[in-house]
Amino acid sequence: MDAVHAYIDQHMERFREELDAFLRIPSVSARREHDDDTRRAAEWLADRMRDAGLTVTLHETPGHPIVVGSHHGAGDAPTLLVYGHYDVQPPEPLELWTSPPFEPEERDGRIYARGSVDDKGQLYLHVKAIEAHLRAAGSLPLNVIVLAEGEEEVGSANLMPFVDEHAERLGADFIVISDSTMYRPGMPSIGASLRGIAYFQVDVRGPAGDLHSGSYGGAVVNPANALARIIASMHDDQGRVAIAGFYDDVDTPEAYRKQIGSLPFDDEEFRAEVGAPALGGEAGRTTLERIWIRPTLDVNGLLSGYTGEGSKTVLPSKAMAKVSCRLVPSQDPDRIRELFQAHVERVAPPGVTVDVSFLHGGRPWLATLEGPLVDAASRALERAFGTAPVFAGEGGSIPIVDEFERVLGARVLLMGFGLPGENAHAPDEWISVENFEKGTHAAAALLAELGR
Amino acid sequence: MDAVHAYIDQHMERFREELDAFLRIPSVSARREHDDDTRRAAEWLADRMRDAGLTVTLHETPGHPIVVGSHHGAGDAPTLLVYGHYDVQPPEPLELWTSPPFEPEERDGRIYARGSVDDKGQLYLHVKAIEAHLRAAGSLPLNVIVLAEGEEEVGSANLMPFVDEHAERLGADFIVISDSTMYRPGMPSIGASLRGIAYFQVDVRGPAGDLHSGSYGGAVVNPANALARIIASMHDDQGRVAIAGFYDDVDTPEAYRKQIGSLPFDDEEFRAEVGAPALGGEAGRTTLERIWIRPTLDVNGLLSGYTGEGSKTVLPSKAMAKVSCRLVPSQDPDRIRELFQAHVERVAPPGVTVDVSFLHGGRPWLATLEGPLVDAASRALERAFGTAPVFAGEGGSIPIVDEFERVLGARVLLMGFGLPGENAHAPDEWISVENFEKGTHAAAALLAELGR
Repeated sequence: MDAVHAYIDQHMERFREELDAFLRIPSVSARREHDDDTRRAAEWLADRMRDAGLTVTLHETPGHPIVVGSHHGAGDAPTLLVYGHYDVQPPEPLELWTSPPFEPEERDGRIYARGSVDDKGQLYLHVKAIEAHLRAAGSLPLNVIVLAEGEEEVGSANLMPFVDEHAERLGADFIVISDSTMYRPGMPSIGASLRGIAYFQVDVRGPAGDLHSGSYGGAVVNPANALARIIASMHDDQGRVAIAGFYDDVDTPEAYRKQIGSLPFDDEEFRAEVGAPALGGEAGRTTLERIWIRPTLDVNGLLSGYTGEGSKTVLPSKAMAKVSCRLVPSQDPDRIRELFQAHVERVAPPGVTVDVSFLHGGRPWLATLEGPLVDAASRALERAFGTAPVFAGEGGSIPIVDEFERVLGARVLLMGFGLPGENAHAPDEWISVENFEKGTHAAAALLAELGR
Repeated sequence: MDAVHAYIDQHMERFREELDAFLRIPSVSARREHDDDTRRAAEWLADRMRDAGLTVTLHETPGHPIVVGSHHGAGDAPTLLVYGHYDVQPPEPLELWTSPPFEPEERDGRIYARGSVDDKGQLYLHVKAIEAHLRAAGSLPLNVIVLAEGEEEVGSANLMPFVDEHAERLGADFIVISDSTMYRPGMPSIGASLRGIAYFQVDVRGPAGDLHSGSYGGAVVNPANALARIIASMHDDQGRVAIAGFYDDVDTPEAYRKQIGSLPFDDEEFRAEVGAPALGGEAGRTTLERIWIRPTLDVNGLLSGYTGEGSKTVLPSKAMAKVSCRLVPSQDPDRIRELFQAHVERVAPPGVTVDVSFLHGGRPWLATLEGPLVDAASRALERAFGTAPVFAGEGGSIPIVDEFERVLGARVLLMGFGLPGENAHAPDEWISVENFEKGTHAAAALLAELGR
């Protein structure tokens, strides 16, 4: 194993250059104008996986392609499936980036680029760990499959149909995903829970066209005012979601809640990091509870009427909100969809029509924090970082975690190398150079530990 | 006078071509990129006023120029000041125009273009009426001043300082403004009231940058949710504005309210015209009351977070609303500003900062419906349209009406030739060809009647 780790250190500069090339491809899955770029990212990744020594196929889907690489040279040894995604979030607003989102730049020990941490950097370090074993040791200590999709940021609509269809070929004993953050710098972490998601678009329509707010205002229901009332109705004064039945299925093990309470956490440090004047949220909950094990309802976007410079006295004909709920075990996105739609129907005022579209959903997940996978990961992380990992929740969603476990019948390990403040989904996204390097070592060590 | 009216009929085709040239200039006063166009409109208008026989000067201001033309050849006869504006509203959203906003097109007896009715067409017909007198009769029956500004759509910030400074030169016995609508096609109208306005921008800021709604959602106050709550708090369940003290100064003469009730009005026709599923507004009020003599609070624009195609799981760092109140006699925009700001301060939640900017304001106005000006206008309108005018309210704002009366000490006549559904401030703005023609005759007749 020393030769494997030495290989990683010797070739790290090249690994970094390759990652930069990956990051330069604007594979924004949500935008049709980037469809060619997204395909190019898939093809680039497939080529690099072949270079690493894997047998690779690129599978067409109704959306973006799925890349599968595998190496089954370890006979009866177990099989590890590595999952990641090569698509990225839209980079807007562009003016808030310090350096352009698709021109990676290293500053202060960080690689800044859209997708650096979510998820190109964290996916690519596994490819490099596999390469290190095959080049330095000439073989892999277990069988591996790398599964990379290009639609994670838009709901992974085509992934599970693909996994269902190819369940035999994708058969694995363990699954590892690096698409999450460590609890703190220098504190390697194993993911203990994920939130699910239910993402909606609410479209309110009133008059057939925009109207003069003087000639018509007061007698025509304003879709933007109506939208504001609908959204405001979704929280009570205690910061709780006020949709009837919303909390019915929330069920967090008390032991896990206590474990969360034992982690060091400084509210003022967190507040300063996000730069808000104060923290807020559901009354009676700690910050870690609020972001890990309590569900939310957040507006992600608002648009209506005139939004340019100066003033325009228009009564807009329509108003739009994107609204998403983060879900916790055991909430179900389909059930939340029903409750959300019923709520909107109940509060929508006369004088406008309101349509709710369900853009995508994903189930929440709770890890099982015992067994050979977690034990191997603990040793691998301790080898790479010099300290044992902690178990941490994750506020974000990786909907396919729950689905992988159900379809492939293998436990999932969340071993993330992002860090708090990494700006995933925001301007100035970054990954720590140190974590990219130690993450590559940890990924290589995990292969060795699981292959023992 | 027959020669004057015959001249108008003979030259109408040319008048229409000139108006088209005027409408082709995109004098959007709110947009800096159109500053040159706005100046070009002022210069074009000054040239046409000179062609008509007026002595014209173009006055620089800190904003767009003010054009003043005059003819003082009638000795001791009274002086009429004609006020109008050559700037127009922004044309967006462009995709909703049937023909491009700055390429005038006649369809079904209407001239479609941005500014056709608001206010280039209605201003220009007065210039043509003056030309008709000077060319056909060789003189004007009274002294005239034409005052045209280029900032009416952005609050007329530089007009009243100019009027104050040139009050002597602008001294007049009567003022006429054509920037409003007739009550119905074929029903010439004299304006009885105007609503005022107080226009605000509300900026809510939370975290320093956009955040991942999974990693942070629930613990950081969402500026868009906060904005929705703030806006929703501004109305009660009866459609009344819920800002403390908002109605304190509302004071409508009962006689005027009764007169409004006597006008023919069909709610279903109005609803079908605006194309909304139902009408709405303040409980216990008729539609005409709601749009003429009751104050409003309407959102004119909303913007926050991600508003493009698909979904983006962002917790936005800021949210913006443009909100304006239409005011009725005797509400004061400065007082409403204080109440609005106090309300926002009271309801703004911790965790965000909220700034209220006052973009512009204008006072409401009530006409005096008796005296020589209204008598002359009644005769002029009856001559042009063949029927006596009605007295009608106007939901829109012409803030300078009240200020003209106070500074120049002359009564204002509102003699508008627009029509309901004209789409002022919206896509597919139009003016009726018939009203442009009859309006020119009415303007010429008004000069004669006042000059008697």
